[in-house]
Amino acid sequence: MQTLFLPIAAPDAEFYRRALHRQTQLTKPPGSLGRLEQLAVALAALQRRDQPALDNIHISIFAADHGIAAEAVSAFPQAVTAEMVKNFAAGGAAVNVLARQLNAHFEVVDVGLLNPVELPSVIRQRAGAGTENFKIKPAMSEAQLQIALAAGRAAVSRALVGKADIFIGGEMGIANTCSASAMAAALLAVPADEITGAGTGLNAGQIRHKAAVIQLALQTHCQRLTTPLAVLQTLGGFEIAALAAAYISAAQQRLPVLVDGFISSVAALLAARINPDCRCWFFYGHRSEEKGHQQVLDALAAEPILQLGMRLGEASGAVMAVPVLQMACRLHNEMATFSQARISAGL
Amino acid sequence: MQTLFLPIAAPDAEFYRRALHRQTQLTKPPGSLGRLEQLAVALAALQRRDQPALDNIHISIFAADHGIAAEAVSAFPQAVTAEMVKNFAAGGAAVNVLARQLNAHFEVVDVGLLNPVELPSVIRQRAGAGTENFKIKPAMSEAQLQIALAAGRAAVSRALVGKADIFIGGEMGIANTCSASAMAAALLAVPADEITGAGTGLNAGQIRHKAAVIQLALQTHCQRLTTPLAVLQTLGGFEIAALAAAYISAAQQRLPVLVDGFISSVAALLAARINPDCRCWFFYGHRSEEKGHQQVLDALAAEPILQLGMRLGEASGAVMAVPVLQMACRLHNEMATFSQARISAGL
Repeated sequence: MQTLFLPIAAPDAEFYRRALHRQTQLTKPPGSLGRLEQLAVALAALQRRDQPALDNIHISIFAADHGIAAEAVSAFPQAVTAEMVKNFAAGGAAVNVLARQLNAHFEVVDVGLLNPVELPSVIRQRAGAGTENFKIKPAMSEAQLQIALAAGRAAVSRALVGKADIFIGGEMGIANTCSASAMAAALLAVPADEITGAGTGLNAGQIRHKAAVIQLALQTHCQRLTTPLAVLQTLGGFEIAALAAAYISAAQQRLPVLVDGFISSVAALLAARINPDCRCWFFYGHRSEEKGHQQVLDALAAEPILQLGMRLGEASGAVMAVPVLQMACRLHNEMATFSQARISAGL
Repeated sequence: MQTLFLPIAAPDAEFYRRALHRQTQLTKPPGSLGRLEQLAVALAALQRRDQPALDNIHISIFAADHGIAAEAVSAFPQAVTAEMVKNFAAGGAAVNVLARQLNAHFEVVDVGLLNPVELPSVIRQRAGAGTENFKIKPAMSEAQLQIALAAGRAAVSRALVGKADIFIGGEMGIANTCSASAMAAALLAVPADEITGAGTGLNAGQIRHKAAVIQLALQTHCQRLTTPLAVLQTLGGFEIAALAAAYISAAQQRLPVLVDGFISSVAALLAARINPDCRCWFFYGHRSEEKGHQQVLDALAAEPILQLGMRLGEASGAVMAVPVLQMACRLHNEMATFSQARISAGL
């Protein structure tokens, strides 16, 4: 647990200054590449490179089941978690298509499916056979939380062995927007109905039911919800714990992170509440359609790169943003300067 | 001139229906890929393919000078138009970096620089040595307009010979946001100061001056500005005329178009006013920071793919959106269906 609190470096001030200066020299009006300039400069300062680059992308999908699924809070049956893990293993999911296109390293971690998926390509680091139903009791034990956190750290270790330039985490777990919404409500101190959304496709009545389940759980556990880790243990999912630990571990080891949508952002918020310095290492891939995402992004002062109306999870929105970051790097590295191109300066 | 009014096909209803149906079968909650689903379906219907694709990208940059530059309406001196054409030819501009990354076909067309750039890689199809100062007299003659329109059509012919899957037009021309703002004000019937922006980087006082120049021109020429082509001839630029003709010609020949930022969108608005059916063939790369862009996009009912705070022109925002469209196609084509992956259906 103490690992979570180890210090995190700030972005490098000298590489930041140099990157900012280079942007003023490139053959374009100052500021005319907008976010692309900021992204390249931020990455240069994190990577401590004059030529920032995202050649080597690491994607870890953490999958786990949720006891709260028994409360009919998802549009899909619980069996879909394991079925989608098999789909990831077979290469048929959205994130597989995107990962192939980017030549990214892709892996799936079973951090607590109800029934293990027996496939050689699925990494098994299981904290349990799904969480408990948090409407009734805390989602996981202290020991289970430790296993889930360790699974996140292990994924970052593999990313570093593979010389990754960026870490992307994703999640799969039927009912996990219910868990994430409960944690967001607890962390942001807002009523459940202000933050609870449709997940994979609930209708208005079903969303009200989901929010009521969450509100009851918040009341039941209110004495426990005193620290970010207590929120995670009481309302969390194994895959969300793994994501939060992975984000902190990546930041501690100077590996930039690209955060996905609502559930991943709740994991990022947990990480930021546990060890606030990690936030400097986070990029945000996209703004999800899921209702609570904007509130969580606001709490993180996050500006997502894309707004494409996506709400799939499984890292898909983060992976979609990779080409934008790559283009930002290439523009920074490859454009001619005014003096190289002998171009007259502006007013 | 009559060529502009030749008929344009509608998207194919049968390919549209089939693509929409396929999206419901893919292993994701319905609608969870947001814009990516819509983009893939739209492209399938335009390309008449069950597997839409953007493998072959054609980029034409049209460059020309503007007489209105004499009114001190740009942050950069007029010499920069030709200097940037040389930068394009040398591969040092932002769009070069992006085009290389996409393995796109890239070309620059001198459609009316003040002084021709004598480089073998620059295509010369000149309508004149820059336009006239439209504060004083119409920007171009009828004959010059014809040459500029033909230059746009010729670029599309080259794209078709090269088996392009999409046409991207870009522009370079110091003071061309002044011309584009004047045309947008005329076409949308709004006062100049509601639509005039900073261009390459004017301050507030300079923007007021630029708007006053435009407002005076609108008053001077008000009797002439009765048709879209008259607006183009009176207030336009050669590169903007080329873009408008290219967009119409592409649509007439079933080649989808990816529109760039403010100036390109004004060309798209001209095209839509000349031959409204062309709009079905347009995708919009990004929302520019330039003040008038949103009004022009609204008039076109356009939803840009990216919002990255860019305002560079030279096709850069359109080219940035290509990876999003490519990913949308690959997701559509390569994701497993529920039955292939044996995944339980939702509620």
